[in-house]
Amino acid sequence: MPIQVGVIMGSKSDWETMQHACDILDELQISYEKKVVSAHRTPDLMFEYAEQAAERGIKVIIAGAGGAAHLPGMVAAKTTVPVIGVPVQSKALNGLDSLLSIVQMPGGIPVATVAIGKAGATNAGLLAAQIIGSFDEEVRSRVQARRDRIRSEVLESSDTL
Amino acid sequence: MPIQVGVIMGSKSDWETMQHACDILDELQISYEKKVVSAHRTPDLMFEYAEQAAERGIKVIIAGAGGAAHLPGMVAAKTTVPVIGVPVQSKALNGLDSLLSIVQMPGGIPVATVAIGKAGATNAGLLAAQIIGSFDEEVRSRVQARRDRIRSEVLESSDTL
Amino acid sequence: MPIQVGVIMGSKSDWETMQHACDILDELQISYEKKVVSAHRTPDLMFEYAEQAAERGIKVIIAGAGGAAHLPGMVAAKTTVPVIGVPVQSKALNGLDSLLSIVQMPGGIPVATVAIGKAGATNAGLLAAQIIGSFDEEVRSRVQARRDRIRSEVLESSDTL
Amino acid sequence: MPIQVGVIMGSKSDWETMQHACDILDELQISYEKKVVSAHRTPDLMFEYAEQAAERGIKVIIAGAGGAAHLPGMVAAKTTVPVIGVPVQSKALNGLDSLLSIVQMPGGIPVATVAIGKAGATNAGLLAAQIIGSFDEEVRSRVQARRDRIRSEVLESSDTL
Amino acid sequence: MPIQVGVIMGSKSDWETMQHACDILDELQISYEKKVVSAHRTPDLMFEYAEQAAERGIKVIIAGAGGAAHLPGMVAAKTTVPVIGVPVQSKALNGLDSLLSIVQMPGGIPVATVAIGKAGATNAGLLAAQIIGSFDEEVRSRVQARRDRIRSEVLESSDTL
Amino acid sequence: MPIQVGVIMGSKSDWETMQHACDILDELQISYEKKVVSAHRTPDLMFEYAEQAAERGIKVIIAGAGGAAHLPGMVAAKTTVPVIGVPVQSKALNGLDSLLSIVQMPGGIPVATVAIGKAGATNAGLLAAQIIGSFDEEVRSRVQARRDRIRSEVLESSDTL
Amino acid sequence: MPIQVGVIMGSKSDWETMQHACDILDELQISYEKKVVSAHRTPDLMFEYAEQAAERGIKVIIAGAGGAAHLPGMVAAKTTVPVIGVPVQSKALNGLDSLLSIVQMPGGIPVATVAIGKAGATNAGLLAAQIIGSFDEEVRSRVQARRDRIRSEVLESSDTL
Amino acid sequence: MPIQVGVIMGSKSDWETMQHACDILDELQISYEKKVVSAHRTPDLMFEYAEQAAERGIKVIIAGAGGAAHLPGMVAAKTTVPVIGVPVQSKALNGLDSLLSIVQMPGGIPVATVAIGKAGATNAGLLAAQIIGSFDEEVRSRVQARRDRIRSEVLESSDTL
Repeated sequence: MPIQVGVIMGSKSDWETMQHACDILDELQISYEKKVVSAHRTPDLMFEYAEQAAERGIKVIIAGAGGAAHLPGMVAAKTTVPVIGVPVQSKALNGLDSLLSIVQMPGGIPVATVAIGKAGATNAGLLAAQIIGSFDEEVRSRVQARRDRIRSEVLESSDTL
Repeated sequence: MPIQVGVIMGSKSDWETMQHACDILDELQISYEKKVVSAHRTPDLMFEYAEQAAERGIKVIIAGAGGAAHLPGMVAAKTTVPVIGVPVQSKALNGLDSLLSIVQMPGGIPVATVAIGKAGATNAGLLAAQIIGSFDEEVRSRVQARRDRIRSEVLESSDTL
Repeated sequence: MPIQVGVIMGSKSDWETMQHACDILDELQISYEKKVVSAHRTPDLMFEYAEQAAERGIKVIIAGAGGAAHLPGMVAAKTTVPVIGVPVQSKALNGLDSLLSIVQMPGGIPVATVAIGKAGATNAGLLAAQIIGSFDEEVRSRVQARRDRIRSEVLESSDTL
Repeated sequence: MPIQVGVIMGSKSDWETMQHACDILDELQISYEKKVVSAHRTPDLMFEYAEQAAERGIKVIIAGAGGAAHLPGMVAAKTTVPVIGVPVQSKALNGLDSLLSIVQMPGGIPVATVAIGKAGATNAGLLAAQIIGSFDEEVRSRVQARRDRIRSEVLESSDTL
Repeated sequence: MPIQVGVIMGSKSDWETMQHACDILDELQISYEKKVVSAHRTPDLMFEYAEQAAERGIKVIIAGAGGAAHLPGMVAAKTTVPVIGVPVQSKALNGLDSLLSIVQMPGGIPVATVAIGKAGATNAGLLAAQIIGSFDEEVRSRVQARRDRIRSEVLESSDTL
Repeated sequence: MPIQVGVIMGSKSDWETMQHACDILDELQISYEKKVVSAHRTPDLMFEYAEQAAERGIKVIIAGAGGAAHLPGMVAAKTTVPVIGVPVQSKALNGLDSLLSIVQMPGGIPVATVAIGKAGATNAGLLAAQIIGSFDEEVRSRVQARRDRIRSEVLESSDTL
Repeated sequence: MPIQVGVIMGSKSDWETMQHACDILDELQISYEKKVVSAHRTPDLMFEYAEQAAERGIKVIIAGAGGAAHLPGMVAAKTTVPVIGVPVQSKALNGLDSLLSIVQMPGGIPVATVAIGKAGATNAGLLAAQIIGSFDEEVRSRVQARRDRIRSEVLESSDTL
Repeated sequence: MPIQVGVIMGSKSDWETMQHACDILDELQISYEKKVVSAHRTPDLMFEYAEQAAERGIKVIIAGAGGAAHLPGMVAAKTTVPVIGVPVQSKALNGLDSLLSIVQMPGGIPVATVAIGKAGATNAGLLAAQIIGSFDEEVRSRVQARRDRIRSEVLESSDTL
């Protein structure tokens, strides 16, 4: 099966957050690859990765970074494949810097930004699945089945308060 | 041609911002509909809209709202169609409230958030096009052509400083 | 005795905060029910709960949620029973996102917002009691008696500095 | 008819905001009084006003103030009548100071806080009506009728985009 | 010796911070008293304390509080004795709420605000000493001697890097 | 009459704000001088001014500055005369930078910080008067008289709502 | 004379801010070039510009951008020439997003960040001159002469209050 | 070898952060000195240090401080040697106060500001090296070699996810 989603992150230390995106993709049986691609330390690799993504058949890129987080926006500048940006929680400013660096893109180059940290990474996986699911009924029904299961868990949890 | 993108907004006053999303969709020849759907003032309509989106063939929903902006997240809770959230600039807090209300979704229900205000609305249109373009080469090449044109304009603008 | 206050929360993990509202209601002998009702994971249940609250005789709803906290505002959109919103402290942004998502409601649908976290939950219980107390002298005098007791405790604490 | 709602504000300049609360009360036929009561410039009057509110039959107090906004919290400290706090938009910090000064009350003394500025003042009027409406069916049905009317207006506005 | 400085705090839990003000006053041999006086839980005591301060010979009041911190401003409203406000670090917002609630006083009633937390409490003690020292050469020279000592310590610390 | 208060500011453009401090000192008949003293552009003058303040009989220094506002803290570092810092409203960040640069002084060197902008400048004048008034009954009674007059104005303003 | 400073900006609209950097370089007789180079719209040009800067003899790069401002950091990632970043004031968030996107660079790739807006652009020109001046006595003395002149202007301005 | 870089910090407690600047300078074989120089506690030493820096041959000054961090800006006001400011992470506000106090300098006196905390200190060392490297090929090639090494490490780290 060709790789549908590329999961990249600015540093190996972002893996603790970004693995939650991969967990969702595993769960929903969506093929993906994962790589460390740093905007600031491996800029040429970043451009190369972005330039080849479409022709390699990648449908969605998930990019996570923290602080002055330039990876999602710069990858988005070099490809028309939709890019989901995950703001990794930073040490001093708790990810507010990561969030603003990713979401406040100028008109012309969008990044689909999700929440700071683990919840955002989980949602990045789900959003990738929903994007693919808009064109693939089987993936959509897996997303729906996951939601149905979660809804049941929430309903049951109420009885244990 | 079936409607591919649904553009909704919480109030008619959001149109000043949201029209920039529609301008892009017009430019890229992507079919869309536009509606005022308020999370707080027409909640049942909102749920109905979200529930029917997938079966109506809508591929992407763009939802704009300001302040305690619940429209994008609540629509996302009721459909597996990908939802792009546009934080409309609010009066007192300049859209920081809109942004956080839209982007900080809990794990399980993603909203693809873009920048506050006009730039975000423009990018919402482009992101919708890129999502469709991941599965439709013709749309992708229109997005790419637009980028090429913009790049030329930037290069030329440098000579007029 | 009919249930006067509905205490709902977006996730079981909010119980650590929301129990402080219930502790106050227990202390002041106000009847209540407690449930997990998630805006994003059980949206239909949320609407159903809100729609039935008035006819079930509920006088006040207390709703707690964190992050992009849509529960209080969406419940408020579906009932005219007064809704008290408790911003649960979130991980990355310490509840600032929860607070703004709850308090910055557009004109038309109010949410009575209290402080972030435990103090807010305690005050949600007290505010519910004060609302009921405005129409029930016995409840009012219980609230007053609690205040008198706390005042004495403060006065005594001064001697132990 | 006895006065049911007391609308107070820290300065005459707050009237531009607070009149929106009074407009709602007029519209919903709820009796009220309006006064300038300053926490810092007329502290004794403030205490006297708060102390007498309950025995005068006041059911809800709406208090608006800006900057280091102490009026709502201090009135709340001196009465068990529920107090709704309206953060007036301040010059330098756009009402963020007003909001935090009002909403972040310590456990023990709640203030029902609404949004910054005009939307908040409107909602303060509605919240007061909903509180009274929880114990007065006629008021509740007026609130409901207003909502029904607004919903129709929203639905119609969609056709004019 | 008459009491020159009144150190008050909104809650016994503020003592951990406020003791640093008292340590300075002890060190500089300035007479003081310390009390828990809560704006919200003992409002009448607060007014009484403020009203009597001048006639009791108090030259400076130091007031510490956290969250929606109304104590310094309300005491300042009831006396012309200069009031120093110490923003105690709060749990959710790290004292930003405390700081804005204390410093953003409207024109007419000043509060001399110092830094959040321990450094602020230390400086409140020093500021009280400097105010008294402006009219008492002996106190001033003690403040100066303390500074000289600290300067020497800083100079020495450089050698131990 | 010797000069009791030194009013300094970092730039001539700060005069629009700082004149409100001088207006109060005029009104309360407190002698003062006013000067432009820039921490960054005339650092030696600043040190010289601070060093001579005490021996020149100055009882209080009021220092206003905006942005990275170092004037109040640096003057405070060079004198034991109490320094009141006025955060001038800055262009981009509305004075939040000015406020934090002035108020967050490390333990050892206090600055008595007031509100951002005009209200803060007014209160700086009043605080200087209250500090002097703690040791001069005539000044204190002038401050008290001003408060009494303001209180009457507030009470009257209520009738004109 | 070879070009010593490269002044680049993300959009022609940034010229209003960035011209203040050029004014300083003109005044101090430092040779420079100015160009529009957009991180997101002309990424390849950006990389090319950065890669060639050192061999072209450029000693300092000044890069201005707003919002999710990636230009300074990405240029810095592709050259060892020192890069000065100017946060251009953005519409919704007043440049706080620009500032954090530029200054919060991860360890490894520094950007010398200056203030938001016009003051920052002016200082970028001066900082470039000071960097060159550290190795060129003539430039240094021009910087010093400018400071001396400004100091005189400040001293004179004091007399016109 | 003459000292090229002066590393100063406001307090010995800043060493934990500032040592990362020194580690880089050691690694890149750039001569430096390190000192505790406090703006507020040793102001005269600070001025003396800044005044002598140029004639002592210092090419770059790195200054770290936290809270109301005046050291970098005040040193910059007294020398034309370029000053790099490192915002040390503060306790209550996580270094946001340090950052704004350092970066928001008024036009005329620049400070080259880097990120909050450890990453910023590391980058301060690198920025100093890059400034020197602009005029010293050997230093530049050491900086480049370090980057090449880091790039390899990033590429290898990707295989260990």
